[in-house]
Amino acid sequence: MPRHVVIIGGGFGGLCAARALAGADIAITVIDKRNFHLFQPLLYQVATGLLSPAEITTPLRHILKKQRNVSVLLAEAVDFDPAGRRVILADGEVDYDYLIVAAGMVNAYHGHDGWSTFAPGLKTMEDASTIRQKIFYAFEVAERERDPALKQAWLTFTVIGSGSTGIELAGMIAEICRSSLKGEFRTIRPEDAQVLLIEAADRILPGYPPDLSVKAARALDRLGVRTLTGARVVSIDAEGLVYAHPAGRTSIPARTIVWSSGVKASPLAERLAEKTGLPTDRQGRLMVRPDLSVEGYPEIFVIGDMAHVRGKDGRPLPGLAPAATQQGRYVARLIRKRLAGQGEARPFAYFDKGTLSVIGRHQAVAAIGRWHFSGFLAWLLWLFIHLILLINFENRLIVLTRWAFQYFVFSRGGRQLCQEGILKLPISKGGVSESFKPLNRC
Amino acid sequence: MPRHVVIIGGGFGGLCAARALAGADIAITVIDKRNFHLFQPLLYQVATGLLSPAEITTPLRHILKKQRNVSVLLAEAVDFDPAGRRVILADGEVDYDYLIVAAGMVNAYHGHDGWSTFAPGLKTMEDASTIRQKIFYAFEVAERERDPALKQAWLTFTVIGSGSTGIELAGMIAEICRSSLKGEFRTIRPEDAQVLLIEAADRILPGYPPDLSVKAARALDRLGVRTLTGARVVSIDAEGLVYAHPAGRTSIPARTIVWSSGVKASPLAERLAEKTGLPTDRQGRLMVRPDLSVEGYPEIFVIGDMAHVRGKDGRPLPGLAPAATQQGRYVARLIRKRLAGQGEARPFAYFDKGTLSVIGRHQAVAAIGRWHFSGFLAWLLWLFIHLILLINFENRLIVLTRWAFQYFVFSRGGRQLCQEGILKLPISKGGVSESFKPLNRC
Repeated sequence: MPRHVVIIGGGFGGLCAARALAGADIAITVIDKRNFHLFQPLLYQVATGLLSPAEITTPLRHILKKQRNVSVLLAEAVDFDPAGRRVILADGEVDYDYLIVAAGMVNAYHGHDGWSTFAPGLKTMEDASTIRQKIFYAFEVAERERDPALKQAWLTFTVIGSGSTGIELAGMIAEICRSSLKGEFRTIRPEDAQVLLIEAADRILPGYPPDLSVKAARALDRLGVRTLTGARVVSIDAEGLVYAHPAGRTSIPARTIVWSSGVKASPLAERLAEKTGLPTDRQGRLMVRPDLSVEGYPEIFVIGDMAHVRGKDGRPLPGLAPAATQQGRYVARLIRKRLAGQGEARPFAYFDKGTLSVIGRHQAVAAIGRWHFSGFLAWLLWLFIHLILLINFENRLIVLTRWAFQYFVFSRGGRQLCQEGILKLPISKGGVSESFKPLNRC
Repeated sequence: MPRHVVIIGGGFGGLCAARALAGADIAITVIDKRNFHLFQPLLYQVATGLLSPAEITTPLRHILKKQRNVSVLLAEAVDFDPAGRRVILADGEVDYDYLIVAAGMVNAYHGHDGWSTFAPGLKTMEDASTIRQKIFYAFEVAERERDPALKQAWLTFTVIGSGSTGIELAGMIAEICRSSLKGEFRTIRPEDAQVLLIEAADRILPGYPPDLSVKAARALDRLGVRTLTGARVVSIDAEGLVYAHPAGRTSIPARTIVWSSGVKASPLAERLAEKTGLPTDRQGRLMVRPDLSVEGYPEIFVIGDMAHVRGKDGRPLPGLAPAATQQGRYVARLIRKRLAGQGEARPFAYFDKGTLSVIGRHQAVAAIGRWHFSGFLAWLLWLFIHLILLINFENRLIVLTRWAFQYFVFSRGGRQLCQEGILKLPISKGGVSESFKPLNRC
């Protein structure tokens, strides 16, 4: 009976671990509550209607179909039994000999969970769909609204948090307003919409070198995004938000708010910490051993965004795809060595490939080691890297086509509002005008 | 103050009417509860995961943005006040001088509305999403199921009704089983799944000439679809269906059932009939005058699938896009004439372009006047016509790419199961096995 390796999560880490175990004389089960691998770096393009879900997802079964030692299981892992070496599912359980936990992160609202209703974050495909519908629905309501103040509130788009996702979203929303929707309405001008980016730190992109923050801020300004730094959000509701700054508090009426100001480890991290006694950091990430295993349970590994692993500089590794894939490959190698009785491996070492964020047309920032650059070259690099990292050739071709059309004619096809989605949005009914009169009948 | 033409529905009929009124000195308001035009003939390809919603929809505002006499209004029309010349919306009202009602059809269950839970029909994008999720989820459950009888029930796909949509769906589902999913599972063989097509009449495609029904049946048989004619469905529930036939009753355990056995006019037809005294036919379609107007209300027109209009042969026109577009253009011309004081127009006359249904790879049937043909040529014609009818160039290119990949490598990208969708499906919990053991660990 071959050994059974169970992998929880089909993201970058889990998928890489599974692939790196190809051909080994083991049975692998990849458990995910969704049936697809999501190319998260382009999720913001789905959230803004440029790409479709099918273009950045690939069914896990399809990716792994030729790897005969892998089974994919659509199921939700909810708990662990480390002593009995079992994963508890919502509707069953699975035994393991080795366990790799790679369940990623979820949105975190720092004790204000009620904010999620009004300011969805962008971690899942469902999130992307919600944000996309909120954005395009806001213009529809604004077109019908006759109260100028409410019209303006519907035309105010606010992104909270200016990490990579935050600036990418703000840049895209600005492009929707200035280009994609131009000329399509009769009582509003989408290009007059306000796009705000709110950051609690004293500069945007706080994880990047300061010179790139300056360049990014300048690029966003040219796109028409208003950036507010040193602004800490203190409340969010259906009408808008309030932020605190050194001079006091300011309230912004805004009906479309996106949260990209915090993530925390998947709730599974807490379950595992409780069962194994493993400590967690402030974001709920598990403090694993240098070989990514769990203290006292050498057969359990935690990889990807869920793991707190320190880099050469002593700081925890960023939640990026390269960290997850390197960890997946490392753990796969380590399991192969153990199965071959070759003793312990060297600690995991992260090879930093740098970071890249796109801001808009011809604009991106890149920090690769000591090399910082921005502008057109960084933008081309971003396009190229993201295109080749897409997992299948068909999607690569289709994404390239979509990008080309957006580049040349500002098209944006993913704008369907589904009925059910609209009904679920928290819309203040009073705001919609009773009787519709188009203003500029020609 | 220019005259106000209100059009309810942005389908083929409504959109064509709006476009044919371009440049006229009137104000046009197109009301739709969705913000997009749907290319309905390809909806079954979204329901089977081949195309994405964005690829067969175009925002109504985008199509009409350069036509300055048109406003698009995202709203739900719920009733009429013909005396006051007003359309009642769910949240307001709109006055009109001319009204064109083109709200289409909805699924009809002939008095068994409860069946819709277990056997969704395919009229809307929401329907397509439900069917897509049911199909791909069934394979996931079958992979986990250990009771062979339940496994088989999850692997039995039944399409009720063998009109164009029914045979297109059955053919696509067969291709999913035989080609797209081949080799992706470990405890089931998707190619062993059963695809059934159930028809109450004595032949499939009853609306086509009999010789084409025979050819279609043969083509479906080659694809692995089992066709049951003379079989009237008498009950549907979560476990499967029962059908009556001359020899008695047969029960089929089947967890995935699609309804394509009946449509009726939108509920708006009933509202309009009640308020104007207009009679309706058995399908709820409105019996309009030869100029498509409502008796007693010459300013109200009904076009498209909602209108009961007789062709040269005395039979009601089929619910096809060409009928709707011709009617839209006819009514637009008539309104222009009336505005110019040019008196009444000739009655509407339908120019029959024929019908075409695709069955599978290299297989389609076409009836164009007296000319019937099938096979590879009909298939090429189908591909060509549907591609050029797609409203925008970008989608044409992307759909062509998708088709090419499906043709050569059987790919099918739209297979994501969204969490929310899964939770809403009526799954019999007892059927899912408690503990998952992949069978063929290698």
